[in-house]
Amino acid sequence: MTSREQPPHQPLAESVLADLRAASVATLTTQLLKRGFRNRAPVGLQPLRPDLKLIGVARTLRYVPAREDLATLEALASPEHPQRWLIEHVRPGDVVVMDARGDPRAGTLGEILATRLQQRGCAGIVSDGPVRDAAGIRALEMPTFCAGAHPNANVTVHHAADVDVPIGCGGVLVMPGDAIVGDADGVVVIPRELVAEVAADAAEQEREEAYIHQRIREGDSIVGVYPLDEATRAEYYARRGRRPA
Amino acid sequence: MTSREQPPHQPLAESVLADLRAASVATLTTQLLKRGFRNRAPVGLQPLRPDLKLIGVARTLRYVPAREDLATLEALASPEHPQRWLIEHVRPGDVVVMDARGDPRAGTLGEILATRLQQRGCAGIVSDGPVRDAAGIRALEMPTFCAGAHPNANVTVHHAADVDVPIGCGGVLVMPGDAIVGDADGVVVIPRELVAEVAADAAEQEREEAYIHQRIREGDSIVGVYPLDEATRAEYYARRGRRPA
Amino acid sequence: MTSREQPPHQPLAESVLADLRAASVATLTTQLLKRGFRNRAPVGLQPLRPDLKLIGVARTLRYVPAREDLATLEALASPEHPQRWLIEHVRPGDVVVMDARGDPRAGTLGEILATRLQQRGCAGIVSDGPVRDAAGIRALEMPTFCAGAHPNANVTVHHAADVDVPIGCGGVLVMPGDAIVGDADGVVVIPRELVAEVAADAAEQEREEAYIHQRIREGDSIVGVYPLDEATRAEYYARRGRRPA
Amino acid sequence: MTSREQPPHQPLAESVLADLRAASVATLTTQLLKRGFRNRAPVGLQPLRPDLKLIGVARTLRYVPAREDLATLEALASPEHPQRWLIEHVRPGDVVVMDARGDPRAGTLGEILATRLQQRGCAGIVSDGPVRDAAGIRALEMPTFCAGAHPNANVTVHHAADVDVPIGCGGVLVMPGDAIVGDADGVVVIPRELVAEVAADAAEQEREEAYIHQRIREGDSIVGVYPLDEATRAEYYARRGRRPA
Amino acid sequence: MTSREQPPHQPLAESVLADLRAASVATLTTQLLKRGFRNRAPVGLQPLRPDLKLIGVARTLRYVPAREDLATLEALASPEHPQRWLIEHVRPGDVVVMDARGDPRAGTLGEILATRLQQRGCAGIVSDGPVRDAAGIRALEMPTFCAGAHPNANVTVHHAADVDVPIGCGGVLVMPGDAIVGDADGVVVIPRELVAEVAADAAEQEREEAYIHQRIREGDSIVGVYPLDEATRAEYYARRGRRPA
Amino acid sequence: MTSREQPPHQPLAESVLADLRAASVATLTTQLLKRGFRNRAPVGLQPLRPDLKLIGVARTLRYVPAREDLATLEALASPEHPQRWLIEHVRPGDVVVMDARGDPRAGTLGEILATRLQQRGCAGIVSDGPVRDAAGIRALEMPTFCAGAHPNANVTVHHAADVDVPIGCGGVLVMPGDAIVGDADGVVVIPRELVAEVAADAAEQEREEAYIHQRIREGDSIVGVYPLDEATRAEYYARRGRRPA
Repeated sequence: MTSREQPPHQPLAESVLADLRAASVATLTTQLLKRGFRNRAPVGLQPLRPDLKLIGVARTLRYVPAREDLATLEALASPEHPQRWLIEHVRPGDVVVMDARGDPRAGTLGEILATRLQQRGCAGIVSDGPVRDAAGIRALEMPTFCAGAHPNANVTVHHAADVDVPIGCGGVLVMPGDAIVGDADGVVVIPRELVAEVAADAAEQEREEAYIHQRIREGDSIVGVYPLDEATRAEYYARRGRRPA
Repeated sequence: MTSREQPPHQPLAESVLADLRAASVATLTTQLLKRGFRNRAPVGLQPLRPDLKLIGVARTLRYVPAREDLATLEALASPEHPQRWLIEHVRPGDVVVMDARGDPRAGTLGEILATRLQQRGCAGIVSDGPVRDAAGIRALEMPTFCAGAHPNANVTVHHAADVDVPIGCGGVLVMPGDAIVGDADGVVVIPRELVAEVAADAAEQEREEAYIHQRIREGDSIVGVYPLDEATRAEYYARRGRRPA
Repeated sequence: MTSREQPPHQPLAESVLADLRAASVATLTTQLLKRGFRNRAPVGLQPLRPDLKLIGVARTLRYVPAREDLATLEALASPEHPQRWLIEHVRPGDVVVMDARGDPRAGTLGEILATRLQQRGCAGIVSDGPVRDAAGIRALEMPTFCAGAHPNANVTVHHAADVDVPIGCGGVLVMPGDAIVGDADGVVVIPRELVAEVAADAAEQEREEAYIHQRIREGDSIVGVYPLDEATRAEYYARRGRRPA
Repeated sequence: MTSREQPPHQPLAESVLADLRAASVATLTTQLLKRGFRNRAPVGLQPLRPDLKLIGVARTLRYVPAREDLATLEALASPEHPQRWLIEHVRPGDVVVMDARGDPRAGTLGEILATRLQQRGCAGIVSDGPVRDAAGIRALEMPTFCAGAHPNANVTVHHAADVDVPIGCGGVLVMPGDAIVGDADGVVVIPRELVAEVAADAAEQEREEAYIHQRIREGDSIVGVYPLDEATRAEYYARRGRRPA
Repeated sequence: MTSREQPPHQPLAESVLADLRAASVATLTTQLLKRGFRNRAPVGLQPLRPDLKLIGVARTLRYVPAREDLATLEALASPEHPQRWLIEHVRPGDVVVMDARGDPRAGTLGEILATRLQQRGCAGIVSDGPVRDAAGIRALEMPTFCAGAHPNANVTVHHAADVDVPIGCGGVLVMPGDAIVGDADGVVVIPRELVAEVAADAAEQEREEAYIHQRIREGDSIVGVYPLDEATRAEYYARRGRRPA
Repeated sequence: MTSREQPPHQPLAESVLADLRAASVATLTTQLLKRGFRNRAPVGLQPLRPDLKLIGVARTLRYVPAREDLATLEALASPEHPQRWLIEHVRPGDVVVMDARGDPRAGTLGEILATRLQQRGCAGIVSDGPVRDAAGIRALEMPTFCAGAHPNANVTVHHAADVDVPIGCGGVLVMPGDAIVGDADGVVVIPRELVAEVAADAAEQEREEAYIHQRIREGDSIVGVYPLDEATRAEYYARRGRRPA
């Protein structure tokens, strides 16, 4: 274990939350792409509850491959065990993000721990491995994104090595404190220092795309409409009654 | 871009459509296997709407790996961009089939474009990559087969190189004009010149298998029934009141 | 074919069945892990019917790669064809477990054969390949675990080589006679000689975990509760009114 | 174990051996393709000794996934252990072909056993897993084709289940008795009943290709030469002084 | 086939060739990274001849998955077959780059065709699939980069669809006319419009790194030396006797 | 960065080094298997110099996926950059072990840094990613085990996150201070607290296997010899003139 100081609690501002609620994950990745980030959406994750939107702040848990003498059921009894420590130090709005190296051979968390996370106000769970007790976790009103279900206990293949350090998850760097947003398309990891502007621009993009989508539903061609050319953009601003800031 | 002439419009004949509606994708692959084709059903695709049957004619879109200076959001504004051009040249009954090299790292199409396709009478979408805005696309009454969902824009990893050329999709050759049929089991790609006879024989096979299935449900052994031996086949013809053509 | 003697029928005892019904697959893997077994839950399988629990005894079917002259539709007509023979020799409570080498390119069984299995009292189907006619199989009241759906006939890529021999399925050794249990998390393969004690201990663990889960739902920390420390264990025994055997 | 009767010894006829010596593995696959076999050359194998040609008759060894209580170092002491039994029953000209499911996590054979095989006149070793003691095995004058090297003992991940049964190796069906040929390009598995004609036609094709190659080296275009058109074929026959049988 | 006009012959200028000879592939990727290109070096390719440097201009050949009735040995006889056409239209300095979708199941080119390419002055061969007759191709004095060796003919799994169009190779976009450079580390694909400046800057970087390497071999720390800080850079320029342009 | 204190220098004792020099990596894995460790040999690594044996103490470097704004060439200039810091803090006998998540898309170290490591007395390099400048690194008299070569700079896909923490490498847990041994078969990671006894028992096993190997070379059957039965073991002890301790 390298660090066990609880990192500073820096929940997302209410205005940012509002923008993130208004923005799809797809739109957020587009805003990140515009800023040069091509790899902010983990691969291989599915929502257990595609109907629930995930918004929160990353707390990270790093698994490494198990060694038979270290990764034991007994080791889980210690409150200092990294997984257990993290769960008991989650704060409202935190998202537990796990680096399971995409290993499909074990669940990375089960229903009892997920229930405890929910009790503590956890915003959601993200893992690039499976979960176990998937039916029970699905029944919780907490969004979980993972690589499906597998019954094995995590110690079968994982050794919990660290918390609150940079990790990879689904091929994406996750820094503690990053903003995590998830919907039916998957998850996006937004560098914390960029989240306010990315969220604001994404919310604006959603309004624009709502207009575009409406035009397309009415039978317009995409030419000039998607993306908006100058003339159609003027119509859009006119209909909205104002230009965006 | 190698070609931008709209290929001749050769919709499937109504009799062929009727046979394809009566045949499952599994049965169609059996008919193709009987003709020596072992590789006509792409791997790695799932239906977003398993309740909707897909039947149509292939229009192909070929993606190659992105190069940062070519695959940009700005490039999408041109009506000559291959993806955009194809969408605006889809005809009723066409199926947009995309070669995304099975890359899981980006959506290959989103809700706005899918909506436009639906407006143009597109029969459905097939991609060996994910889609984005999967929830929105699922809500359309248009069958889509893809490798799940991913939020990234296609330009993140793809450069649209070509339309209406032979492509690979899920490991299967798709020629423009091929018949595309999809159901809950996945998709089959039928060489255009064979579709009439394959569809007819598949429809006939379905009638036979309905009889077999009925016998099995009534408690018969599969021996002599599946496949039909000579005696049971005679009973089948007797019950049907006629031999098939 | 190496063997065609029907193996002795050794259905699971009613007391074992009762314990297995009370235990989740996740809990059963924990009991196996306690006994040194880290690899008893196949990877890559999903339940077609996560609402149905699978409990039964393994009958195995071994596929090897197809050779064009051997794996033909005609070969399926023989009652001695291993797949067909096995289906007609399944006994109530048997589970058909298939080694398809995880090949995604063909279904390993279709609706007609699944219906016949159901008629014969088969407890369920497990395959590390896809099935075909997935919608029809899902409609049967029989649990099936597989690698999704693919329309191709099994002879497209498989040659049925053997029945009732040790096989691998999803990376796990399956011996004929092993106990097979499945739920929404997947499948566990329990060595037959251990099933009674594993099932009993798993059922006991479930009772304990139900207590733990209740405590967590009531707001307790996991510390001292999950796993139970000595004090909390005493409370648990007190509430139960007795110690477990 | 399903069978421990030594299969009949049917070494390849000297005339077949002569043809096989004259034919490259690539050419043999072409002859098989002409007969409708598209999948006779395993994938993922490399020669430890690309300078040694392998020609022999398949003896098969089937590994399944290990179970911790069965796949032990102690189990190897039994002369009835399938791997050990097979090694002591190999006959001159036999090739040991192993189905290791392509698992890269353990060697499937080590230097001591390879030395014993060489002592017994074994023609060579084929495995779709790695070997251990690769340097030592490379030093033997016996061709070995495998998936590289890994130090782990085979019992780490494998349980030897069977000998002399049909297996898959590198995605290809291998029947006991099949002819096995290997060179720097890899391995081909020739159905035993076809080996005489395939070998003869391959040897003839080699003669033809030697002529073609000579023409190309002299500066000819491939047009009309590769493949030979009628005119060039006439020149070829003229130079040879006779038509092939 | 979409295009059969021979593209304009634009061999690399002698000054560019000189710079590319002086630069390693690793250094060229660094120069591309400085310009924002992170994905210009294909994955999964190995040099058959690591001692031969490859420098040339891309001619592309696009394979798609085979269909049994199209990808036949007979089809290879036509001089219009894309692979055959390309080989007979290669010009001195051209590199044949093949998109084989990374499929390991067949060779993409054999010795006779490679010999013909060499006769025509071909600079080298790049394929993301294997080659066949690898020993023979290795013996040619022509650099070849590929995914190892496999004996199968390309028609076993490939249908040659197109030449001189943008392709993917090893996950990298290759445009006809791109500069291709290969050494023991693999291959880099340089956009044609950038090759002069990338090559010049890479050659300069090599001179700088030769100095750094010398300093490190003499026992210096990397701190301040790799990369050069201001003071060490001044020393470097002093030793060189001049600043680079 | 979580830790930058140089860990205590605990070189392997000379007697341990002597035993490790006498033992092959394969034999060391057998000794670990006897102690219940089934997963101590990384997968996917090859020796650049199979003729050089690697023996040393693990220093770890942890890469996570790159983020475009963090993983830059400029970041490498800082002496605090984890990779650079580690290289300048390596001590004689240390082995640099890198967790590159098995990513094939970039080299994890190049020739200049490898040269610096050699200058500092580094015992060798282990990476589950490729290296760049592979030819230059091969020319150093320092054993390197890696996933082949790739020209890209590590910042292309990696962000150096940490040093001297537990990592995964090729699917195996590596703790700082673990003993690392490599030969032509690959690498084994020995828990530091076990290395003395594992090395001693492995050296003893080598002596025994030398005897066995000699017997096999002389024509003995493996039965009773490999493994030694009681009688043969007595002969072995007799020939050795003593029992092992």
